[in-house]
Amino acid sequence: MIRVALDAMGSDHAPQVELEGVAQALRELPPTFKIQLVGRIADVEAGLEQVEIVDRSRVELIDAPEVVGMGEKPLQAIRGKPNSSIAVGLGLQKKGASDAFISAGNTGAVMAASTLLLRLHPGVQRPAIGTVFPTAQQPVLLLDAGANVDCDPRELLGFAHLGAVYARDILGRAHPAVGLLNIGEEDEKGNAVVKEAHQLFKAATNFQYLGNVEGRDIPAGECRGTPLDVVVCDGFVGNIVLKFYESAARVFVSLLRQEIPDILKRPEMAKVLKVLDYSTYGGAPLLGVRGVSIICHGSSQPKAIRNAIRVAVQMVEIEMDRHIDAELNPSAGKAVV
Amino acid sequence: MIRVALDAMGSDHAPQVELEGVAQALRELPPTFKIQLVGRIADVEAGLEQVEIVDRSRVELIDAPEVVGMGEKPLQAIRGKPNSSIAVGLGLQKKGASDAFISAGNTGAVMAASTLLLRLHPGVQRPAIGTVFPTAQQPVLLLDAGANVDCDPRELLGFAHLGAVYARDILGRAHPAVGLLNIGEEDEKGNAVVKEAHQLFKAATNFQYLGNVEGRDIPAGECRGTPLDVVVCDGFVGNIVLKFYESAARVFVSLLRQEIPDILKRPEMAKVLKVLDYSTYGGAPLLGVRGVSIICHGSSQPKAIRNAIRVAVQMVEIEMDRHIDAELNPSAGKAVV
Repeated sequence: MIRVALDAMGSDHAPQVELEGVAQALRELPPTFKIQLVGRIADVEAGLEQVEIVDRSRVELIDAPEVVGMGEKPLQAIRGKPNSSIAVGLGLQKKGASDAFISAGNTGAVMAASTLLLRLHPGVQRPAIGTVFPTAQQPVLLLDAGANVDCDPRELLGFAHLGAVYARDILGRAHPAVGLLNIGEEDEKGNAVVKEAHQLFKAATNFQYLGNVEGRDIPAGECRGTPLDVVVCDGFVGNIVLKFYESAARVFVSLLRQEIPDILKRPEMAKVLKVLDYSTYGGAPLLGVRGVSIICHGSSQPKAIRNAIRVAVQMVEIEMDRHIDAELNPSAGKAVV
Repeated sequence: MIRVALDAMGSDHAPQVELEGVAQALRELPPTFKIQLVGRIADVEAGLEQVEIVDRSRVELIDAPEVVGMGEKPLQAIRGKPNSSIAVGLGLQKKGASDAFISAGNTGAVMAASTLLLRLHPGVQRPAIGTVFPTAQQPVLLLDAGANVDCDPRELLGFAHLGAVYARDILGRAHPAVGLLNIGEEDEKGNAVVKEAHQLFKAATNFQYLGNVEGRDIPAGECRGTPLDVVVCDGFVGNIVLKFYESAARVFVSLLRQEIPDILKRPEMAKVLKVLDYSTYGGAPLLGVRGVSIICHGSSQPKAIRNAIRVAVQMVEIEMDRHIDAELNPSAGKAVV
């Protein structure tokens, strides 16, 4: 039984959104997992009365009397609140009592605590936040979506390796095609870091490198006719593009709602909205830490929590952790399946 | 009579798109301008037979036997082809025989030639490409959209000044509100360049600084409740966001077309499509060069050319050039109106 610890105090509407997500997951996903709800016991118990849990024996309550606020400084919050839901949830995984952690709380605090408690895979210099973008074709994994504002070329190469394993293991791409986000396809395009990274990527052998890709290739889901699986950039660019996209999608939909209110009721809109809807993809994995840590949006809906649980279970089942070790340390580990 | 030189050989469907744009401009805009069509005379004359020009006396043909290709290296192309439509068109302005230049050709070549021939305003370190983004509110000017991959904090401050003048003169914002594109609103967010730029922007007095803004604030058109007029970033980030947006808008429209074909015929869609449609805003001004140089997309439609002509005329009429001098050199020039 896979043990997924869920920060019950994370989202803007915690714990209710989290608990509704758990209820959905228990109802809809294969019964290979149990949930460890980490938070203030009284709040969680009160919240549980509002939702219908099909199998209460698969839900365990773990007390964490402290809560990290959205505005708190990450390191300070983690050090100052050892009994927060974030620290307790990740602590379980550290001591082998849990297999995965999910939180819709303070992103910086989850990142810091994950790095401190779970530590990094040998060979990883920095962890990266991966985000799955809906596109006109198959979804594309973009990383780093905000963990690192400045990256050197080797760190970007590390992200390419991490992204390739995720695309293979979780998105089911047999030979992940990786692009480096740039402002043109030619070798000489871009800033100094990206130019050097481009050369490192060209020399890499364990993923298919499509070359420099541009901003337009992400929503298109392809680059020069080849489907794109992974796009690598630093966390400054990635975070701006991610937030831009979320907002643009919201603006599109609210424009449609305002101008043509009846259209949103049409069944064909479902596919259109799905393309604009992040929550389908279930949170952003923090790649590079040992174990599983998934960050959800503060404004997550229950469906996003449910899907994050699905992804967490999948990451554990498929042993992604072992595959990352093999990818980064091919001589030490077993070969990647 | 304002003299607007138009590169007739620039766009992917040159010269026909350009000539149709000219025909629209002559029909629809106030008759304060004439057009100087710069290109291969034979091609332009043949093309003119396909369009209806209401007032042929306002169109002058200027021969430029060479054409810069989209794939050519900018500096090499400009130096190697002194009789290209780009070099000839900008040359007219240099010698005082023209007031503005518009091209949908090789962006790098237009930038290089504009800088070489027109030169920069005193106080400007680098020119920036301004792009007007449709948003949920009023349009927002983003710069730099791709002229400079690496920028130092002072250059970003220069872009803020250039953007503020454009927002005031062309977009009609009395007190332009400027934001610095970052990954969070707090002082300590961002990379080293942006952090230092944030401090410089805070100390600036001749525009209203809204502080750090995030990717999501661009499509929203506001930041923390205040309407946004100008967003400053380096050309690496700006170009990626711009191309991402263009592509996302295309994907969104084609999804709607595919799933709900009848919807595009509904009159209420016009407003939705307008928000997704760049061509409304008429090209990207290269700000910081003396004079007027406007870059259009290679895939421009006639409406985009028409609107670029409208913007070029407006930039000349309002004497934006003089206002930029005053903004950058307040002691030397007259006060900005």
